[in-house]
Amino acid sequence: MEDSPQRAVRGLGSFPWYVGGTQVLGLACVVITGVWMGSYHGGYAWDGSGQEFNVHPLCMVLGLVFLYGDAILVYRVFRNESKRNVKILHAVLHLLALIISIVGIVAVFDFHNHNKIPNMYSLHSWCGMLTFVLFCVQWLMGLGFFLFPGTLMALRSWYLPLHVFFGLAMLAMSLATCLLGISEKLFFSIQHTYSQFVPEGILGNMLGLLLVAFGILVGYLVTWEDFRRPPHPEEEALSVHFKTLTEGGGSPTSP
Amino acid sequence: MEDSPQRAVRGLGSFPWYVGGTQVLGLACVVITGVWMGSYHGGYAWDGSGQEFNVHPLCMVLGLVFLYGDAILVYRVFRNESKRNVKILHAVLHLLALIISIVGIVAVFDFHNHNKIPNMYSLHSWCGMLTFVLFCVQWLMGLGFFLFPGTLMALRSWYLPLHVFFGLAMLAMSLATCLLGISEKLFFSIQHTYSQFVPEGILGNMLGLLLVAFGILVGYLVTWEDFRRPPHPEEEALSVHFKTLTEGGGSPTSP
Repeated sequence: MEDSPQRAVRGLGSFPWYVGGTQVLGLACVVITGVWMGSYHGGYAWDGSGQEFNVHPLCMVLGLVFLYGDAILVYRVFRNESKRNVKILHAVLHLLALIISIVGIVAVFDFHNHNKIPNMYSLHSWCGMLTFVLFCVQWLMGLGFFLFPGTLMALRSWYLPLHVFFGLAMLAMSLATCLLGISEKLFFSIQHTYSQFVPEGILGNMLGLLLVAFGILVGYLVTWEDFRRPPHPEEEALSVHFKTLTEGGGSPTSP
Repeated sequence: MEDSPQRAVRGLGSFPWYVGGTQVLGLACVVITGVWMGSYHGGYAWDGSGQEFNVHPLCMVLGLVFLYGDAILVYRVFRNESKRNVKILHAVLHLLALIISIVGIVAVFDFHNHNKIPNMYSLHSWCGMLTFVLFCVQWLMGLGFFLFPGTLMALRSWYLPLHVFFGLAMLAMSLATCLLGISEKLFFSIQHTYSQFVPEGILGNMLGLLLVAFGILVGYLVTWEDFRRPPHPEEEALSVHFKTLTEGGGSPTSP
Protein backbone atom coordinates (compact mmCIF):
# COMPACT_ATOMS: atom_id res chain seq x y z
CA MET A 1 0.00 0.00 0.00
CA GLU A 2 3.06 2.20 -0.40
CA ASP A 3 1.45 4.22 -3.17
CA SER A 4 -1.86 4.94 -1.46
CA PRO A 5 -1.10 8.38 0.05
CA GLN A 6 0.35 9.47 -3.28
CA ARG A 7 -2.75 8.22 -5.08
CA ALA A 8 -4.99 9.88 -2.52
CA VAL A 9 -3.52 13.29 -3.32
CA ARG A 10 -3.04 12.97 -7.08
CA GLY A 11 -5.91 14.38 -9.08
CA LEU A 12 -7.83 15.67 -6.06
CA GLY A 13 -7.74 19.21 -7.51
CA SER A 14 -10.83 18.54 -9.59
CA PHE A 15 -12.59 16.62 -6.81
CA PRO A 16 -14.40 19.59 -5.15
CA TRP A 17 -15.68 20.74 -8.54
CA TYR A 18 -17.13 17.33 -9.31
CA VAL A 19 -18.73 17.12 -5.85
CA GLY A 20 -20.16 20.62 -6.41
CA GLY A 21 -21.42 19.41 -9.78
CA THR A 22 -23.32 16.53 -8.18
CA GLN A 23 -24.98 18.93 -5.72
CA VAL A 24 -25.97 21.39 -8.46
CA LEU A 25 -27.33 18.58 -10.65
CA GLY A 26 -29.11 16.83 -7.76
CA LEU A 27 -30.71 20.02 -6.47
CA ALA A 28 -31.68 21.02 -10.01
CA CYS A 29 -33.47 17.66 -10.39
CA VAL A 30 -35.38 18.18 -7.12
CA VAL A 31 -36.28 21.80 -7.98
CA ILE A 32 -37.35 20.99 -11.56
CA THR A 33 -39.51 18.09 -10.31
CA GLY A 34 -41.06 20.40 -7.71
CA VAL A 35 -41.71 23.17 -10.22
CA TRP A 36 -43.06 20.74 -12.83
CA MET A 37 -45.63 19.29 -10.41
CA GLY A 38 -46.26 22.71 -8.85
CA SER A 39 -46.69 24.81 -11.99
CA TYR A 40 -48.10 22.33 -14.52
CA HIS A 41 -50.15 20.09 -12.23
CA GLY A 42 -51.60 22.33 -9.52
CA GLY A 43 -49.24 21.90 -6.57
CA TYR A 44 -49.44 19.58 -3.59
CA ALA A 45 -52.10 18.20 -1.24
CA TRP A 46 -52.94 15.00 0.68
CA ASP A 47 -56.57 14.45 -0.28
CA GLY A 48 -56.56 11.67 -2.87
CA SER A 49 -56.54 14.18 -5.75
CA GLY A 50 -53.99 14.64 -8.51
CA GLN A 51 -52.22 17.01 -6.13
CA GLU A 52 -51.54 14.07 -3.84
CA PHE A 53 -50.03 12.23 -6.79
CA ASN A 54 -47.66 15.19 -7.21
CA VAL A 55 -46.07 14.34 -3.86
CA HIS A 56 -44.86 11.05 -5.40
CA PRO A 57 -42.30 12.25 -7.98
CA LEU A 58 -40.99 14.97 -5.66
CA CYS A 59 -40.40 12.53 -2.78
CA MET A 60 -38.84 9.86 -4.99
CA VAL A 61 -36.38 12.27 -6.65
CA LEU A 62 -35.52 13.84 -3.28
CA GLY A 63 -35.23 10.50 -1.46
CA LEU A 64 -34.10 7.79 -3.84
CA VAL A 65 -31.97 10.04 -6.06
CA PHE A 66 -30.58 13.13 -4.31
CA LEU A 67 -30.27 11.85 -0.71
CA TYR A 68 -29.32 8.36 -1.91
CA GLY A 69 -26.54 9.81 -4.08
CA ASP A 70 -25.32 12.03 -1.25
CA ALA A 71 -25.33 9.10 1.18
CA ILE A 72 -23.06 7.22 -1.22
CA LEU A 73 -20.75 10.22 -1.59
CA VAL A 74 -20.09 10.79 2.14
CA TYR A 75 -17.13 8.37 2.15
CA ARG A 76 -15.47 10.45 -0.56
CA VAL A 77 -16.44 13.91 0.73
CA PHE A 78 -15.65 13.40 4.44
CA ARG A 79 -12.38 11.69 3.66
CA ASN A 80 -10.60 12.76 6.84
CA GLU A 81 -13.41 12.19 9.36
CA SER A 82 -13.43 9.04 11.48
CA LYS A 83 -14.87 6.02 9.71
CA ARG A 84 -17.47 5.50 12.44
CA ASN A 85 -18.90 9.02 12.10
CA VAL A 86 -19.04 8.75 8.31
CA LYS A 87 -20.76 5.36 8.59
CA ILE A 88 -23.43 6.87 10.86
CA LEU A 89 -23.94 9.80 8.46
CA HIS A 90 -24.21 7.29 5.58
CA ALA A 91 -26.87 5.31 7.50
CA VAL A 92 -28.80 8.44 8.57
CA LEU A 93 -28.93 9.87 5.03
CA HIS A 94 -30.14 6.50 3.75
CA LEU A 95 -32.75 6.38 6.53
CA LEU A 96 -33.97 9.85 5.51
CA ALA A 97 -34.08 8.66 1.88
CA LEU A 98 -36.07 5.62 3.00
CA ILE A 99 -38.62 7.64 5.02
CA ILE A 100 -39.13 10.21 2.25
CA SER A 101 -39.53 7.49 -0.37
CA ILE A 102 -42.11 5.70 1.80
CA VAL A 103 -44.13 8.96 1.89
CA GLY A 104 -43.82 9.13 -1.91
CA ILE A 105 -44.96 5.55 -2.39
CA VAL A 106 -47.91 5.93 0.02
CA ALA A 107 -48.93 9.08 -1.90
CA VAL A 108 -49.23 7.30 -5.24
CA PHE A 109 -51.02 4.23 -3.80
CA ASP A 110 -53.45 6.51 -1.94
CA PHE A 111 -54.09 8.54 -5.11
CA HIS A 112 -54.70 5.37 -7.14
CA ASN A 113 -57.01 3.85 -4.52
CA HIS A 114 -59.06 7.07 -4.21
CA ASN A 115 -59.49 7.20 -7.97
CA LYS A 116 -60.01 3.45 -8.59
CA ILE A 117 -56.82 3.27 -10.67
CA PRO A 118 -55.14 -0.17 -10.55
CA ASN A 119 -51.76 -0.36 -8.82
CA MET A 120 -48.56 -2.05 -9.93
CA TYR A 121 -49.34 -2.77 -13.56
CA SER A 122 -46.70 -0.63 -15.32
CA LEU A 123 -43.01 -1.28 -15.91
CA HIS A 124 -42.31 1.88 -13.87
CA SER A 125 -44.11 0.42 -10.86
CA TRP A 126 -42.43 -2.99 -11.22
CA CYS A 127 -38.94 -1.48 -11.44
CA GLY A 128 -39.73 1.01 -8.67
CA MET A 129 -41.06 -1.61 -6.24
CA LEU A 130 -38.11 -3.91 -6.96
CA THR A 131 -35.68 -1.05 -6.31
CA PHE A 132 -37.48 -0.01 -3.12
CA VAL A 133 -37.56 -3.56 -1.69
CA LEU A 134 -33.87 -4.12 -2.51
CA PHE A 135 -33.08 -0.71 -0.96
CA CYS A 136 -34.83 -1.74 2.30
CA VAL A 137 -32.98 -5.09 2.35
CA GLN A 138 -29.65 -3.34 1.68
CA TRP A 139 -30.31 -0.78 4.44
CA LEU A 140 -31.13 -3.49 6.99
CA MET A 141 -28.14 -5.60 5.94
CA GLY A 142 -25.87 -2.55 6.11
CA LEU A 143 -27.14 -1.84 9.62
CA GLY A 144 -26.60 -5.43 10.72
CA PHE A 145 -23.19 -5.91 9.15
CA PHE A 146 -21.56 -2.52 9.68
CA LEU A 147 -23.21 -0.80 12.67
CA PHE A 148 -24.19 -3.75 14.87
CA PRO A 149 -21.12 -4.04 17.13
CA GLY A 150 -21.15 -7.83 17.43
CA THR A 151 -20.72 -8.61 13.73
CA LEU A 152 -17.54 -10.51 12.92
CA MET A 153 -14.93 -8.64 10.90
CA ALA A 154 -14.72 -11.57 8.47
CA LEU A 155 -18.46 -11.24 7.76
CA ARG A 156 -18.11 -7.48 7.27
CA SER A 157 -15.24 -7.91 4.86
CA TRP A 158 -17.20 -10.56 2.93
CA TYR A 159 -20.27 -8.33 2.63
CA LEU A 160 -18.61 -4.96 1.96
CA PRO A 161 -17.93 -5.31 -1.79
CA LEU A 162 -21.45 -6.71 -2.32
CA HIS A 163 -22.90 -3.73 -0.40
CA VAL A 164 -20.92 -1.31 -2.57
CA PHE A 165 -21.80 -3.04 -5.86
CA PHE A 166 -25.52 -3.32 -5.13
CA GLY A 167 -25.58 0.23 -3.73
CA LEU A 168 -24.47 1.59 -7.10
CA ALA A 169 -26.62 -0.87 -9.07
CA MET A 170 -29.67 0.24 -7.10
CA LEU A 171 -28.89 3.92 -7.70
CA ALA A 172 -28.87 3.10 -11.43
CA MET A 173 -32.18 1.22 -11.05
CA SER A 174 -33.64 4.14 -9.11
CA LEU A 175 -32.62 6.57 -11.87
CA ALA A 176 -34.00 4.28 -14.59
CA THR A 177 -37.28 4.10 -12.64
CA CYS A 178 -37.40 7.92 -12.51
CA LEU A 179 -36.92 8.09 -16.29
CA LEU A 180 -39.80 5.62 -16.71
CA GLY A 181 -41.92 7.74 -14.35
CA ILE A 182 -41.18 10.94 -16.29
CA SER A 183 -42.04 9.25 -19.59
CA GLU A 184 -45.26 7.76 -18.14
CA LYS A 185 -46.33 11.11 -16.66
CA LEU A 186 -45.71 12.90 -19.98
CA PHE A 187 -47.71 10.29 -21.93
CA PHE A 188 -50.60 10.58 -19.45
CA SER A 189 -50.56 14.40 -19.37
CA ILE A 190 -49.59 15.62 -22.83
CA GLN A 191 -49.91 12.58 -25.07
CA HIS A 192 -51.42 14.60 -27.95
CA THR A 193 -49.01 17.55 -27.79
CA TYR A 194 -45.78 15.85 -26.62
CA SER A 195 -44.65 15.37 -30.23
CA GLN A 196 -44.99 19.12 -30.86
CA PHE A 197 -42.12 19.87 -28.48
CA VAL A 198 -44.34 21.71 -25.96
CA PRO A 199 -42.60 23.26 -22.91
CA GLU A 200 -43.76 20.55 -20.48
CA GLY A 201 -42.34 17.84 -22.72
CA ILE A 202 -39.00 19.63 -23.02
CA LEU A 203 -38.94 20.18 -19.23
CA GLY A 204 -39.59 16.49 -18.52
CA ASN A 205 -36.97 15.37 -21.05
CA MET A 206 -34.41 17.83 -19.62
CA LEU A 207 -35.14 16.51 -16.13
CA GLY A 208 -34.42 13.00 -17.46
CA LEU A 209 -31.06 14.05 -18.90
CA LEU A 210 -30.10 15.85 -15.67
CA LEU A 211 -30.89 12.68 -13.70
CA VAL A 212 -28.64 10.70 -16.06
CA ALA A 213 -25.86 13.28 -15.60
CA PHE A 214 -26.26 13.13 -11.80
CA GLY A 215 -25.96 9.34 -11.85
CA ILE A 216 -22.89 9.35 -14.09
CA LEU A 217 -21.11 11.98 -11.95
CA VAL A 218 -21.89 10.17 -8.66
CA GLY A 219 -20.77 6.88 -10.23
CA TYR A 220 -17.54 8.49 -11.45
CA LEU A 221 -16.72 9.98 -8.03
CA VAL A 222 -17.40 6.71 -6.22
CA THR A 223 -15.53 4.39 -8.57
CA TRP A 224 -12.60 6.59 -9.62
CA GLU A 225 -9.38 5.28 -8.13
CA ASP A 226 -7.83 8.71 -7.42
CA PHE A 227 -10.82 9.86 -5.35
CA ARG A 228 -10.77 6.84 -3.05
CA ARG A 229 -10.79 7.60 0.68
CA PRO A 230 -7.17 7.43 1.87
CA PRO A 231 -6.40 4.70 4.41
CA HIS A 232 -6.16 6.08 7.96
CA PRO A 233 -3.38 4.19 9.75
CA GLU A 234 -5.12 4.33 13.12
CA GLU A 235 -8.27 2.77 11.63
CA GLU A 236 -6.55 0.02 9.67
CA ALA A 237 -6.44 -2.38 12.62
CA LEU A 238 -10.23 -2.19 12.96
CA SER A 239 -10.91 -1.65 9.30
CA VAL A 240 -13.51 -3.61 7.41
CA HIS A 241 -11.61 -3.05 4.17
CA PHE A 242 -12.06 -6.11 2.07
CA LYS A 243 -8.66 -6.75 0.63
CA THR A 244 -6.78 -5.42 3.61
CA LEU A 245 -8.24 -8.17 5.72
CA THR A 246 -8.60 -11.03 3.33
CA GLU A 247 -5.49 -10.73 1.21
CA GLY A 248 -3.17 -8.58 3.27
CA GLY A 249 -2.39 -6.12 0.50
CA GLY A 250 -3.64 -3.89 -2.32
CA SER A 251 -5.88 -0.86 -2.10
CA PRO A 252 -9.24 -1.04 -0.32
CA THR A 253 -12.11 -2.15 -2.54
CA SER A 254 -14.62 0.30 -1.22
CA PRO A 255 -15.49 3.34 0.90
CA MET B 1 1.19 -7.59 -7.60
CA GLU B 2 2.26 -10.64 -5.62
CA ASP B 3 -1.31 -11.57 -4.77
CA SER B 4 -2.78 -11.32 -8.24
CA PRO B 5 -2.50 -14.98 -9.36
CA GLN B 6 -4.05 -16.02 -6.06
CA ARG B 7 -6.87 -13.53 -6.55
CA ALA B 8 -7.32 -14.65 -10.14
CA VAL B 9 -8.04 -18.21 -9.08
CA ARG B 10 -10.04 -17.55 -5.90
CA GLY B 11 -13.78 -17.63 -6.45
CA LEU B 12 -13.58 -18.54 -10.14
CA GLY B 13 -15.73 -21.63 -9.49
CA SER B 14 -18.92 -19.61 -9.87
CA PHE B 15 -17.58 -17.62 -12.83
CA PRO B 16 -18.78 -19.95 -15.66
CA TRP B 17 -22.26 -20.06 -14.14
CA TYR B 18 -22.49 -16.28 -14.04
CA VAL B 19 -21.23 -16.02 -17.62
CA GLY B 20 -23.79 -18.66 -18.64
CA GLY B 21 -26.40 -16.61 -16.80
CA THR B 22 -25.60 -13.49 -18.84
CA GLN B 23 -25.95 -15.47 -22.07
CA VAL B 24 -29.28 -17.00 -21.03
CA LEU B 25 -30.61 -13.60 -19.91
CA GLY B 26 -29.27 -11.75 -22.97
CA LEU B 27 -30.62 -14.31 -25.44
CA ALA B 28 -33.95 -14.40 -23.57
CA CYS B 29 -34.20 -10.60 -24.00
CA VAL B 30 -33.50 -10.85 -27.75
CA VAL B 31 -35.95 -13.73 -28.22
CA ILE B 32 -38.73 -12.11 -26.16
CA THR B 33 -38.31 -8.84 -28.09
CA GLY B 34 -38.45 -10.78 -31.35
CA VAL B 35 -41.52 -12.76 -30.32
CA TRP B 36 -43.25 -9.66 -28.94
CA MET B 37 -42.85 -7.74 -32.20
CA GLY B 38 -43.47 -10.89 -34.27
CA SER B 39 -46.57 -12.23 -32.52
CA TYR B 40 -48.28 -9.09 -31.22
CA HIS B 41 -47.34 -6.61 -33.95
CA GLY B 42 -47.32 -8.52 -37.23
CA GLY B 43 -43.68 -9.39 -37.80
CA TYR B 44 -41.02 -7.61 -39.82
CA ALA B 45 -40.74 -5.72 -43.09
CA TRP B 46 -38.90 -2.74 -44.62
CA ASP B 47 -41.73 -0.79 -46.22
CA GLY B 48 -42.43 2.13 -43.90
CA SER B 49 -45.19 0.23 -42.11
CA GLY B 50 -45.48 -0.73 -38.45
CA GLN B 51 -43.61 -3.89 -39.38
CA GLU B 52 -40.60 -1.74 -40.23
CA PHE B 53 -40.86 -0.16 -36.79
CA ASN B 54 -40.64 -3.70 -35.33
CA VAL B 55 -37.08 -3.95 -36.65
CA HIS B 56 -36.10 -1.14 -34.26
CA PRO B 57 -36.53 -2.79 -30.83
CA LEU B 58 -35.11 -6.11 -32.05
CA CYS B 59 -31.96 -4.48 -33.47
CA MET B 60 -31.43 -2.26 -30.42
CA VAL B 61 -31.73 -5.11 -27.91
CA LEU B 62 -29.52 -7.35 -30.07
CA GLY B 63 -26.92 -4.64 -30.76
CA LEU B 64 -26.77 -2.19 -27.87
CA VAL B 65 -27.63 -4.72 -25.16
CA PHE B 66 -26.66 -8.31 -25.97
CA LEU B 67 -23.63 -7.76 -28.26
CA TYR B 68 -22.54 -4.71 -26.26
CA GLY B 69 -22.63 -6.73 -23.02
CA ASP B 70 -20.76 -9.63 -24.64
CA ALA B 71 -18.13 -7.26 -26.05
CA ILE B 72 -17.52 -5.99 -22.50
CA LEU B 73 -17.29 -9.53 -21.14
CA VAL B 74 -14.62 -10.82 -23.55
CA TYR B 75 -11.77 -9.66 -21.29
CA ARG B 76 -13.17 -11.79 -18.48
CA VAL B 77 -14.21 -14.80 -20.56
CA PHE B 78 -11.08 -15.15 -22.72
CA ARG B 79 -8.81 -14.64 -19.76
CA ASN B 80 -5.93 -16.71 -21.10
CA GLU B 81 -5.93 -15.53 -24.72
CA SER B 82 -3.43 -12.92 -25.87
CA LYS B 83 -4.46 -9.35 -25.07
CA ARG B 84 -4.23 -8.31 -28.72
CA ASN B 85 -6.65 -11.00 -29.91
CA VAL B 86 -9.13 -10.19 -27.16
CA LYS B 87 -8.88 -6.48 -28.01
CA ILE B 88 -9.71 -7.24 -31.65
CA LEU B 89 -12.67 -9.41 -30.63
CA HIS B 90 -13.86 -6.60 -28.31
CA ALA B 91 -13.66 -4.09 -31.20
CA VAL B 92 -15.35 -6.43 -33.70
CA LEU B 93 -18.27 -7.22 -31.37
CA HIS B 94 -18.71 -3.49 -30.73
CA LEU B 95 -18.57 -2.85 -34.50
CA LEU B 96 -21.30 -5.46 -35.02
CA ALA B 97 -23.32 -3.81 -32.23
CA LEU B 98 -22.82 -0.44 -33.95
CA ILE B 99 -23.90 -1.68 -37.40
CA ILE B 100 -26.99 -3.48 -36.05
CA SER B 101 -28.00 -0.46 -33.96
CA ILE B 102 -27.64 1.81 -37.03
CA VAL B 103 -30.09 -0.49 -38.88
CA GLY B 104 -32.44 -0.23 -35.88
CA ILE B 105 -32.23 3.57 -35.77
CA VAL B 106 -32.74 3.93 -39.55
CA ALA B 107 -35.80 1.66 -39.24
CA VAL B 108 -37.55 3.88 -36.70
CA PHE B 109 -36.70 7.15 -38.50
CA ASP B 110 -37.90 5.66 -41.80
CA PHE B 111 -41.14 4.45 -40.16
CA HIS B 112 -41.74 7.89 -38.61
CA ASN B 113 -41.01 9.74 -41.86
CA HIS B 114 -43.31 7.46 -43.89
CA ASN B 115 -46.13 8.04 -41.41
CA LYS B 116 -45.54 11.77 -40.75
CA ILE B 117 -44.71 11.09 -37.09
CA PRO B 118 -42.29 13.64 -35.62
CA ASN B 119 -38.85 12.35 -34.65
CA MET B 120 -36.84 12.92 -31.49
CA TYR B 121 -39.48 14.37 -29.17
CA SER B 122 -39.64 11.72 -26.45
CA LEU B 123 -37.34 11.06 -23.50
CA HIS B 124 -36.69 7.61 -25.00
CA SER B 125 -35.39 9.19 -28.20
CA TRP B 126 -33.28 11.78 -26.35
CA CYS B 127 -31.65 9.16 -24.11
CA GLY B 128 -31.25 6.77 -27.03
CA MET B 129 -29.61 9.31 -29.33
CA LEU B 130 -27.29 10.48 -26.54
CA THR B 131 -26.28 6.88 -25.83
CA PHE B 132 -25.75 6.12 -29.52
CA VAL B 133 -23.61 9.23 -30.14
CA LEU B 134 -21.49 8.53 -27.04
CA PHE B 135 -21.16 4.89 -28.14
CA CYS B 136 -19.82 6.00 -31.56
CA VAL B 137 -17.37 8.43 -29.91
CA GLN B 138 -16.21 5.71 -27.50
CA TRP B 139 -15.76 3.20 -30.33
CA LEU B 140 -13.66 5.63 -32.38
CA MET B 141 -11.60 6.65 -29.35
CA GLY B 142 -11.07 3.00 -28.42
CA LEU B 143 -9.86 2.30 -31.97
CA GLY B 144 -7.50 5.28 -31.93
CA PHE B 145 -6.11 4.73 -28.46
CA PHE B 146 -5.87 0.93 -28.25
CA LEU B 147 -5.63 -0.48 -31.78
CA PHE B 148 -3.80 2.29 -33.66
CA PRO B 149 -0.16 1.14 -33.28
CA GLY B 150 1.36 4.62 -33.00
CA THR B 151 -0.52 5.70 -29.86
CA LEU B 152 1.78 6.43 -26.92
CA MET B 153 1.51 4.05 -23.95
CA ALA B 154 1.12 7.04 -21.63
CA LEU B 155 -1.97 8.17 -23.58
CA ARG B 156 -3.39 4.63 -23.51
CA SER B 157 -2.90 4.34 -19.78
CA TRP B 158 -4.53 7.75 -19.27
CA TYR B 159 -7.57 6.84 -21.36
CA LEU B 160 -8.10 3.22 -20.26
CA PRO B 161 -9.97 3.82 -16.97
CA LEU B 162 -12.17 6.45 -18.67
CA HIS B 163 -12.94 3.95 -21.47
CA VAL B 164 -13.91 1.31 -18.90
CA PHE B 165 -16.04 3.68 -16.79
CA PHE B 166 -17.93 5.17 -19.73
CA GLY B 167 -18.33 1.73 -21.30
CA LEU B 168 -20.28 0.54 -18.27
CA ALA B 169 -22.13 3.86 -17.87
CA MET B 170 -23.27 3.65 -21.49
CA LEU B 171 -24.45 0.06 -21.05
CA ALA B 172 -26.59 1.34 -18.16
CA MET B 173 -27.87 4.21 -20.35
CA SER B 174 -28.62 1.76 -23.15
CA LEU B 175 -30.61 -0.46 -20.78
CA ALA B 176 -32.51 2.53 -19.34
CA THR B 177 -33.34 3.59 -22.92
CA CYS B 178 -34.68 0.09 -23.63
CA LEU B 179 -36.92 0.30 -20.54
CA LEU B 180 -38.23 3.67 -21.78
CA GLY B 181 -38.84 2.15 -25.21
CA ILE B 182 -40.77 -0.81 -23.75
CA SER B 183 -42.91 1.53 -21.63
CA GLU B 184 -43.56 3.84 -24.60
CA LYS B 185 -44.50 0.93 -26.88
CA LEU B 186 -46.90 -0.47 -24.26
CA PHE B 187 -48.57 2.93 -23.77
CA PHE B 188 -48.95 3.35 -27.54
CA SER B 189 -50.24 -0.20 -28.11
CA ILE B 190 -52.32 -1.19 -25.08
CA GLN B 191 -52.92 2.06 -23.20
CA HIS B 192 -56.51 1.15 -22.33
CA THR B 193 -55.88 -2.46 -21.31
CA TYR B 194 -52.35 -2.21 -19.82
CA SER B 195 -53.81 -1.66 -16.33
CA GLN B 196 -55.80 -4.91 -16.62
CA PHE B 197 -52.60 -6.98 -16.61
CA VAL B 198 -53.08 -8.21 -20.17
CA PRO B 199 -50.49 -10.71 -21.52
CA GLU B 200 -48.67 -8.14 -23.70
CA GLY B 201 -48.22 -5.83 -20.72
CA ILE B 202 -46.85 -8.64 -18.55
CA LEU B 203 -44.54 -9.72 -21.39
CA GLY B 204 -43.18 -6.18 -21.82
CA ASN B 205 -42.68 -5.73 -18.07
CA MET B 206 -40.93 -9.11 -17.80
CA LEU B 207 -38.65 -8.12 -20.67
CA GLY B 208 -37.79 -4.95 -18.73
CA LEU B 209 -36.88 -6.93 -15.60
CA LEU B 210 -34.78 -9.39 -17.62
CA LEU B 211 -32.87 -6.46 -19.15
CA VAL B 212 -32.21 -5.10 -15.65
CA ALA B 213 -30.98 -8.55 -14.52
CA PHE B 214 -28.69 -8.82 -17.58
CA GLY B 215 -27.18 -5.40 -16.81
CA ILE B 216 -26.61 -6.21 -13.14
CA LEU B 217 -24.97 -9.56 -13.93
CA VAL B 218 -22.68 -8.09 -16.62
CA GLY B 219 -21.80 -5.21 -14.27
CA TYR B 220 -21.02 -7.68 -11.48
CA LEU B 221 -18.77 -9.84 -13.68
CA VAL B 222 -16.87 -6.83 -15.01
CA THR B 223 -16.32 -5.02 -11.71
CA TRP B 224 -15.86 -7.97 -9.32
CA GLU B 225 -12.25 -8.10 -8.18
CA ASP B 226 -11.97 -11.92 -8.15
CA PHE B 227 -13.03 -12.21 -11.81
CA ARG B 228 -10.40 -9.77 -13.07
CA ARG B 229 -8.24 -11.01 -15.95
CA PRO B 230 -4.98 -12.28 -14.44
CA PRO B 231 -1.84 -10.39 -15.47
CA HIS B 232 0.18 -12.27 -18.09
CA PRO B 233 3.88 -11.74 -17.34
CA GLU B 234 4.87 -11.75 -21.02
CA GLU B 235 2.36 -8.99 -21.76
CA GLU B 236 3.21 -6.78 -18.82
CA ALA B 237 6.07 -5.03 -20.62
CA LEU B 238 3.70 -3.91 -23.38
CA SER B 239 0.69 -3.61 -21.15
CA VAL B 240 -1.61 -0.63 -21.19
CA HIS B 241 -2.61 -1.32 -17.60
CA PHE B 242 -3.20 2.00 -15.96
CA LYS B 243 -1.55 1.66 -12.59
CA THR B 244 1.18 -0.64 -13.76
CA LEU B 245 2.54 2.11 -15.95
CA THR B 246 1.75 5.22 -13.99
CA GLU B 247 2.32 4.14 -10.43
CA GLY B 248 4.44 1.04 -10.77
CA GLY B 249 2.28 -1.14 -8.53
CA GLY B 250 -1.18 -2.30 -7.51
CA SER B 251 -3.65 -4.34 -9.46
CA PRO B 252 -4.69 -3.35 -12.97
CA THR B 253 -7.65 -1.00 -13.05
CA SER B 254 -9.36 -2.57 -15.98
CA PRO B 255 -9.66 -5.43 -18.52
